[in-house]
Amino acid sequence: MRLTQWTDYALRVLMYCATYQEREQPVTISEVAQSHGISRSHLTKIVQELAAQGLLETTRGRGGGMRLMRPAREISVGAVVRVMESDFEMVECFNLENNTCRLSSHCVLKGVLGSATQAYLAVLDGLTLADLVPQLPEGSALLAPASGAAPVHMLRLVQ
Amino acid sequence: MRLTQWTDYALRVLMYCATYQEREQPVTISEVAQSHGISRSHLTKIVQELAAQGLLETTRGRGGGMRLMRPAREISVGAVVRVMESDFEMVECFNLENNTCRLSSHCVLKGVLGSATQAYLAVLDGLTLADLVPQLPEGSALLAPASGAAPVHMLRLVQ
Repeated sequence: MRLTQWTDYALRVLMYCATYQEREQPVTISEVAQSHGISRSHLTKIVQELAAQGLLETTRGRGGGMRLMRPAREISVGAVVRVMESDFEMVECFNLENNTCRLSSHCVLKGVLGSATQAYLAVLDGLTLADLVPQLPEGSALLAPASGAAPVHMLRLVQ
Repeated sequence: MRLTQWTDYALRVLMYCATYQEREQPVTISEVAQSHGISRSHLTKIVQELAAQGLLETTRGRGGGMRLMRPAREISVGAVVRVMESDFEMVECFNLENNTCRLSSHCVLKGVLGSATQAYLAVLDGLTLADLVPQLPEGSALLAPASGAAPVHMLRLVQ
């Protein structure tokens, strides 16, 4: 049982943006790509989806990049996982169109796994993006404007 | 987010065995395979694993088959999912050997997703296999000895 890589990377992008939210220069796809070793093209699609979901605002051109649309403390982790994780079909019978299970009509497994999934999401609903990122002291190197490249050396300061 | 097909099918095998636990003739792989439209070879591997985990006892030869090792009400659904679902690495950083995430050391995402997974399993820990199968009235057609082939027509009686 695992979340998709799509959701994993989406959470990392948002956490990165939350970490640098106070920085003057917006976060760029290139710096997240370099920092996490993820391909730019893959990240671009994830950022587009996060923008479409109203979680990121993006600006083009020189000095452009992305920022959280709302403060990190107002972005629910559960809400992010719900919109990015498209598949919560815990077992085959969750998908009625492709279901071949012949126990379906008198089986309570689907309901049981659905309840377990709700318990999983309820834990995440109780947290915001602000709970996932380190609290940065004012004037921290982490808040300094990035030079355009990956701020890996800055991240290492808090490791 | 979904369970593996391996765990899905393992639950179906156990539920099938629980349904027919009182039948004189043990459940055969062939009848489960035919009833669910799953390949015999795939089911054989699953049954071997369930036997290795002490959940099924199997007997060879004519009149052989499989039975639950313990009554269905004593088999925890959570325990089954824990032993059959080998991968609870919700995101990449759960696997320390292959982790490339550079936020790891100061990130609480792993702990948060771990807590959510525990909440998921806690729901399943509260249920037994007996909770997943229909209560059969004594003398039901579902309890009649199968003729060796798939009892699909019997299952249809309760659909």
